[in-house]
Amino acid sequence: MKQYSQMSAAELSALKQELEEAFLKHKEKGKKLNMTRGVPSDEQLSICNGILTCLSADDYKALNGTDCRNYGGIDGIPELKKIFADLLDLTPDEVIVGGNSSLALMFDNVAVNMTHGVRDGKPWQTQGQIKFLCPSPGYDRHFTICDYFHIDMIPVAIGNDGPDMDEIEKLVSSDPMIKGIWCVPKFSNPTGIVYCDKTVKRFANLKPAANDFRIYWDNAYAFHDLGNTNITIPNIIRLCEEAGNPNMVYQFASFSKVSFAGASVSCIASSKSNCEYIRKRLTVQTIGPDKLNQLRHARFFKDAAGVMAHMEKHADILRPKFKLVSDTLQSELGSLGIAEWTRPSGGYFVSFDSLDGCAKRIAALCTQAGVSLTPAGATFPKGNDPKDRNIRIAPTCPPLDELKEAMEIFCAAVKLASAERFLSEKQGNQSN
Amino acid sequence: MKQYSQMSAAELSALKQELEEAFLKHKEKGKKLNMTRGVPSDEQLSICNGILTCLSADDYKALNGTDCRNYGGIDGIPELKKIFADLLDLTPDEVIVGGNSSLALMFDNVAVNMTHGVRDGKPWQTQGQIKFLCPSPGYDRHFTICDYFHIDMIPVAIGNDGPDMDEIEKLVSSDPMIKGIWCVPKFSNPTGIVYCDKTVKRFANLKPAANDFRIYWDNAYAFHDLGNTNITIPNIIRLCEEAGNPNMVYQFASFSKVSFAGASVSCIASSKSNCEYIRKRLTVQTIGPDKLNQLRHARFFKDAAGVMAHMEKHADILRPKFKLVSDTLQSELGSLGIAEWTRPSGGYFVSFDSLDGCAKRIAALCTQAGVSLTPAGATFPKGNDPKDRNIRIAPTCPPLDELKEAMEIFCAAVKLASAERFLSEKQGNQSN
Repeated sequence: MKQYSQMSAAELSALKQELEEAFLKHKEKGKKLNMTRGVPSDEQLSICNGILTCLSADDYKALNGTDCRNYGGIDGIPELKKIFADLLDLTPDEVIVGGNSSLALMFDNVAVNMTHGVRDGKPWQTQGQIKFLCPSPGYDRHFTICDYFHIDMIPVAIGNDGPDMDEIEKLVSSDPMIKGIWCVPKFSNPTGIVYCDKTVKRFANLKPAANDFRIYWDNAYAFHDLGNTNITIPNIIRLCEEAGNPNMVYQFASFSKVSFAGASVSCIASSKSNCEYIRKRLTVQTIGPDKLNQLRHARFFKDAAGVMAHMEKHADILRPKFKLVSDTLQSELGSLGIAEWTRPSGGYFVSFDSLDGCAKRIAALCTQAGVSLTPAGATFPKGNDPKDRNIRIAPTCPPLDELKEAMEIFCAAVKLASAERFLSEKQGNQSN
Repeated sequence: MKQYSQMSAAELSALKQELEEAFLKHKEKGKKLNMTRGVPSDEQLSICNGILTCLSADDYKALNGTDCRNYGGIDGIPELKKIFADLLDLTPDEVIVGGNSSLALMFDNVAVNMTHGVRDGKPWQTQGQIKFLCPSPGYDRHFTICDYFHIDMIPVAIGNDGPDMDEIEKLVSSDPMIKGIWCVPKFSNPTGIVYCDKTVKRFANLKPAANDFRIYWDNAYAFHDLGNTNITIPNIIRLCEEAGNPNMVYQFASFSKVSFAGASVSCIASSKSNCEYIRKRLTVQTIGPDKLNQLRHARFFKDAAGVMAHMEKHADILRPKFKLVSDTLQSELGSLGIAEWTRPSGGYFVSFDSLDGCAKRIAALCTQAGVSLTPAGATFPKGNDPKDRNIRIAPTCPPLDELKEAMEIFCAAVKLASAERFLSEKQGNQSN
């Protein structure tokens, strides 16, 4: 098929009419297909149903004798701290296990740094207009936290090896109002890229102008390889230590996409000194995390190897879905010169770039045909994708047959929006 | 026995020696007895063990079809919202069910009011030095939250009908920097008193100088009667509505002392408008509460009546413990004129007042003999009991035999500290 950019106005006009008719047929089917968020499927949740029943009426004590039903224990039961520590190559005293939401750990961490400052720091809120660097496209919920606390967001480009480190080093070392950066280092949300070793090392060796600058290292997909690739990234906490920046990073991880998305366990990992500071706040904030749910997870997975074995089952379920997305995009759009997309080895998303100025139109068309996507622009701070081209495709939740339908509608929308775009350009040129 | 105040110096000196010898015997037993906090006993926890096993591998859907394993649902599953609403005589849309810690709900609420303000208000943090009223003796963890956020605490006396409302009305209506007050309206921590109807009405009819003044109504012991008394207090949310102050109160409740102290569910209840404002923040802060644990609670208790029936089992376990405390205090100290204490009809504590200036000494003596108490002074803001006389006795956790030993040691410590006190007064007078 001829690339759209090579077509005459007449050809584009005919194409557009053809695509409109095809799209109308999709609309008439009246589907309701949801690809808005990175949500595990019923099948993925069901391989964990053992967690629902793995405690018995007399099984409620942790290794250290703690009665998990009662009060006590602010930073997690020892067996689960060890599992997280082993998975992240840390020691248990560098890990605080919380409740079911790593997002809540991040929010709380930013909130307390606003009102109280980092350990030995001044409250961010009293220092004037602070800023975060936001590698983009990135995770919309990170940006929403910044937005909530009126933190200025500076987008930074992200490539195949991670964010633009030249830019980050320049900004961080020169501007003391830059207090943080959001990173999803492995299978980045949404591009799926993995930070290369050199990128991670450069992060650890940043020389921030602000001594209360912090890296929010959201390792959300740390164990979420699609194949048996077992891709590893360097240990940011060790590297920060070696670089003389031991307290510069907070790492987050979670079992939201390991066990149950809404009822799992999460952790924050950092230097012992940072952990001590966080624990002190936690004793004011809460009576402690739900230790019984921690115990369920420890019983079900047994150890870090148990988690990794379980993740292979997830990979088996997810691989065909990512393949379907990739195959459909390739067969439908591969030769048309109207889009680019990522082919991730793990994580939860495919990042799709349309022609500039088409993403919002594509999402609107999809909505008309019953396919809900993450709002176009959501992957950028303030929802503002300057090129209006990025769309996050979340293929995990729908069953394969629905995903197929959704991707066909999506591709039809991309083609129609692209034809409209080229045609309006040609017509614009003619009328000049 | 003669009252200590009637004794001569010689009599006191002999008494002191006798009490010291008795106390030494207690010390020599080398006991380790813990009455520091209001912690449920093993027996209380065990009557709930059904919660550990009440879900089966195919039981994870809420009434409205929500898969409780997955993401979604920010304010609680409908069946549990209804249980809390029924218990508190509210509608489900006035209730947000959270995780396992009502303390966390309170902390978060204060935190967000500091950084963002109440709905339609300015951030508390930008308004200068704000203040909270703290009926005292009160709950130490409330005071710790204020302390953490550098909120000035103004102690207000509390009597048998509730806090001193004349004082509260005067302060709240005249000082716009007073932004909040902590209340435990039923079986108040630690005195066990119940706010009378008139007190509750006066709260609802406050005319605060600050339009962003809020009542933190910590109804922690709402269902925690020791007998079948079923004591009720007026519905503060309705009364605030009627008084034209619909948004002035946040009510908190929890099943921490209904099911499992560390793994229960909690709620915040308020006007629909306040709930809407809170929900908006929650969508930024978290992926939602653990809905599976909410489902466990809904399955186990079934409805509000199920909760109330369960609370009678707790009462049966706790009644003998409170009776033992009351009987021991009466028989050991009743005739000596050296102490007063409360005889609560519910809740978790007995509040004990020694002679002025003796509480710290009593706690220190108890520690020497292996009995840990809540630190003397903890029931006052900043840990500062101006009369150094209040001690919170927490009788729920130890088994009856241990509680008996602990109370005997406690009474021995009270007697010794009191004799020391009178003797040093007499000697002081003599040397003047």
